[in-house]
Amino acid sequence: MSVILHDLAAGDDGRFSPFCWRARMALAHKGLDVDARGTRFCDIANIADGSYERIPVIEDRGKIVNDSFAIADYLEKHYPDAPSLFGDERGRTFALFMNNWANAVMMPAMAPLIIADIYERLDPADKDYFKTSREARFGRPLAEVQAGRDTARDAFVAALYPLRATLEGNAYLGGETPFYGDYPPFAVLQWARVISPFKIFEADDVITQWFERCLDLYDGLGRAMPAANG
Amino acid sequence: MSVILHDLAAGDDGRFSPFCWRARMALAHKGLDVDARGTRFCDIANIADGSYERIPVIEDRGKIVNDSFAIADYLEKHYPDAPSLFGDERGRTFALFMNNWANAVMMPAMAPLIIADIYERLDPADKDYFKTSREARFGRPLAEVQAGRDTARDAFVAALYPLRATLEGNAYLGGETPFYGDYPPFAVLQWARVISPFKIFEADDVITQWFERCLDLYDGLGRAMPAANG
Repeated sequence: MSVILHDLAAGDDGRFSPFCWRARMALAHKGLDVDARGTRFCDIANIADGSYERIPVIEDRGKIVNDSFAIADYLEKHYPDAPSLFGDERGRTFALFMNNWANAVMMPAMAPLIIADIYERLDPADKDYFKTSREARFGRPLAEVQAGRDTARDAFVAALYPLRATLEGNAYLGGETPFYGDYPPFAVLQWARVISPFKIFEADDVITQWFERCLDLYDGLGRAMPAANG
Repeated sequence: MSVILHDLAAGDDGRFSPFCWRARMALAHKGLDVDARGTRFCDIANIADGSYERIPVIEDRGKIVNDSFAIADYLEKHYPDAPSLFGDERGRTFALFMNNWANAVMMPAMAPLIIADIYERLDPADKDYFKTSREARFGRPLAEVQAGRDTARDAFVAALYPLRATLEGNAYLGGETPFYGDYPPFAVLQWARVISPFKIFEADDVITQWFERCLDLYDGLGRAMPAANG
């Protein structure tokens, strides 16, 4: 029986959420069959008992789990014989650090580069909600936020120095093989790849090379989701 | 036979270097006897063959190693039977990420909080070098840089969010026990503790609690170095 993943979807069903991609990669890492159901922002209130405000949410054999890191913990606990997401306790704190860093550093620096592109791709039913909530957060129109992206990109690329310097000489954050800690930063870059044609990294950046490796994982799961047209 | 550590020293022999403390903790983690020799900036050129520009430098059974992370790799390789610094390959990439993060994020944000205090504590023979090189870096007098520290502190404390959020529920970055990845961020905080009376963290910050635990490690090695008088 497949695990159901309520997976944020654009108007054309593109899957772009930087949180849902963490769950998607974790489920693939565990080798589980997944029914990734396209979910608009306006559909979230209809999941299960209606108490969930954010996705990813998974449903697995009658259990419901939300929050991408809680989902990783759940999978690690309930599928102990499948490949480990963390390896050990120290691997879990590493993954948690990368999760926190992706949320606190990568996402706020990435959002201004792609925020208007996200808006354009949403289902019409989601547009008002997204525009109102995000403009309140930024304090100005989304088009205006994104208009400064040629400059903002340099700051974003520079802020990723600790990731870049660590990947020099290492195929993954996990070393020769990926682990859950690779997925939060991967998911933030996949968010941009799927939703926006804006070019962020140079081809010879080790982050690009690591991202390409991640796109190929699990039979090219990440790459199978089309990139935004440039 | 002790490992010799050339360890940056203030005028009163206080050991404050945010790089040397990484080596000091690594040597203690490995349970090695250490001869930590106080070294002023102006003494660095006299170490070994005179080719070293920065410390820490260690001398171990005829071998000389510099750069704190290279020292960790050296100790891990040459003392495989002593407690492991990294645990495994993934632990090493975690430690490397924390090392890069401490250098690229923590240190540039910490330096403006303590830079004039460092100058005051240096040996007279080091003061001109330090003032000239650091004022060139900041582009203004050290006293002026540090004068803004009440405001700069808030940005520093906020920038440590990924560390803080990871330590909630974990005693160390290593989990229940410390590993090398704990030492670079510890060493940056120890730099401030030894050299400056400026109060940075609240007592109930989980970072404070983790730092206090690190001070107690290895028979209170870190705590044995007196804090700057407030």
